[in-house]
Amino acid sequence: MLSIEKYQEEFIKYLEEYKIVKEPKGLYDPIQYILNLGGKRLRPVLTLMSAEIFNVDFKKALNAALSIEVFHNFSLVHDDIMDDAPLRRGEVTVHEKWNINTGILSGDAMLIMAYQLFENYEATTFQALAQLFSKTALEVCEGQQYDVDFEVRNDVTIPQYLKMIEYKTAVLVGAAMKMGAIVAKASKEDQNSIYDFGRYLGIAFQLQDDYLDAFGDPKTFGKQVGGDIIENKKTYLYLKALEFASNQDKDLLIDLFSKNLDDNTEKIETVKSLFSSTGATDKTKAEIEIYTNKAFSVLEKLNISNDKKELLKVFGNNLMSRTV
Amino acid sequence: MLSIEKYQEEFIKYLEEYKIVKEPKGLYDPIQYILNLGGKRLRPVLTLMSAEIFNVDFKKALNAALSIEVFHNFSLVHDDIMDDAPLRRGEVTVHEKWNINTGILSGDAMLIMAYQLFENYEATTFQALAQLFSKTALEVCEGQQYDVDFEVRNDVTIPQYLKMIEYKTAVLVGAAMKMGAIVAKASKEDQNSIYDFGRYLGIAFQLQDDYLDAFGDPKTFGKQVGGDIIENKKTYLYLKALEFASNQDKDLLIDLFSKNLDDNTEKIETVKSLFSSTGATDKTKAEIEIYTNKAFSVLEKLNISNDKKELLKVFGNNLMSRTV
Repeated sequence: MLSIEKYQEEFIKYLEEYKIVKEPKGLYDPIQYILNLGGKRLRPVLTLMSAEIFNVDFKKALNAALSIEVFHNFSLVHDDIMDDAPLRRGEVTVHEKWNINTGILSGDAMLIMAYQLFENYEATTFQALAQLFSKTALEVCEGQQYDVDFEVRNDVTIPQYLKMIEYKTAVLVGAAMKMGAIVAKASKEDQNSIYDFGRYLGIAFQLQDDYLDAFGDPKTFGKQVGGDIIENKKTYLYLKALEFASNQDKDLLIDLFSKNLDDNTEKIETVKSLFSSTGATDKTKAEIEIYTNKAFSVLEKLNISNDKKELLKVFGNNLMSRTV
Repeated sequence: MLSIEKYQEEFIKYLEEYKIVKEPKGLYDPIQYILNLGGKRLRPVLTLMSAEIFNVDFKKALNAALSIEVFHNFSLVHDDIMDDAPLRRGEVTVHEKWNINTGILSGDAMLIMAYQLFENYEATTFQALAQLFSKTALEVCEGQQYDVDFEVRNDVTIPQYLKMIEYKTAVLVGAAMKMGAIVAKASKEDQNSIYDFGRYLGIAFQLQDDYLDAFGDPKTFGKQVGGDIIENKKTYLYLKALEFASNQDKDLLIDLFSKNLDDNTEKIETVKSLFSSTGATDKTKAEIEIYTNKAFSVLEKLNISNDKKELLKVFGNNLMSRTV
């Protein structure tokens, strides 16, 4: 097993070899652009790690890892159009640099290219990878649709919210790990366990994202702290606060989340203190721990050495102890 | 072998069983809507026909046929956004009935669902179908990009135009037929021949579409006659007219194709007479025949009975003798 940094390095090296110098440039240049914007490459690294955990050389999983990364970037390109986002990783988004039509068409091409990367595997592995990929990709679309639907709904329940983040974010983390296991021809049982490990960790990760968006350290948190509050996003914190709040606090919160202000300083402070006073903050922290522990308890079932289990645990703990 | 009408009927029956009554409705309702808008179902019928030509029951090819149809409709949904088209088959387009974001996301889901339909085949057939599908789908994206690029270019050559229509339209016809052959486990040679048959016929069909757009019978032609002229579309007729025209006629044509008028009656008449007087009309008719004959001569190579070859020829002739 290599270190996370080493997998990252190897993946980036492979990504750079995946040059798309094809015609028409109007289709392929935006793809090259978004794939080279950077990012932590967390998902493909998980695929490589998972392959080695199940005893094959990570090199065999490079195409599956790249497929996951190409798909993830496809979803960013199309999501950025839908969210009308000007920036991605500090750089101009594809539809801003080119135009919406380019964003749509280049995104479509990326989704197809993600499938093509499985062609390097023999037929049964190809089918297993493509099948998992399709199921996951469709769930990501469903998660995105739920996210859109929730924006205009006032009756979103906690289970519905959890399902939304599971589909929109967590299943791809699970699939990334399961792909490593598929390439390594691990047992079906192990494949499903590593999927659940990734999925639970993905949910914990997204809940932590909700938490850090409000309570992260402005010095180290990559995005604007309070961004979700400014945008009136119904996060786990918000939904729990509504559930726990007195009628008076509930009205206040609903009122604050109907406002679009120029200066949000006071709104952010009030909302954050409501999150804390209602107990939503503590409940969110507890929930993050519950999902992290769910992930860890799945590890018990895996037919791998204790050393490797420990490694996955360290990885999970590192991920969840981030303050950024 | 059944008749075209019978394959159509069987396909539509199967399509109706393919009910997408899933949540979230915001994602799946538009898919149900576009798939039920109708159309000739030409491509899936070709898949079924091709399967029986290579001696398997068309029923085995229904999922591949449906995949082709779902993909075709995916491309319509995304193209209609890009073209800002209000109507499709006389009904409101998806992005008009819902919104652009819905069009993007539902389209994405359809592309994934098209792949999922191959899951009903065993691993080697699955891989062959998915591989052909990916190659074709990417070419369709490239064709669409060339079409977009050509709109603002004044130096498009005839070979470039032919490549564009081949990618945008013809390869999918070829792929539809090849899929039938793959399901039937026809020889690689036969698979490639039937692909070429469909591809050549697809090019002939698209050239004929260009021709009919200007010279079709207004009573029977589905679209507005002269639509391409009104929109200044650089079709085969236009490019050939430019090539053959005297300098004076060339200037006139270029000038006419830079105008957006309220009343197009005179423009359409002038352009059509230029198409004819330059010899572009005759050349286009000749080119349609060349590609139809290319398709027919590929038939010679196929290892199928003469009866079946005759059947494909009748089908081709019917397609190319349409006046609508």
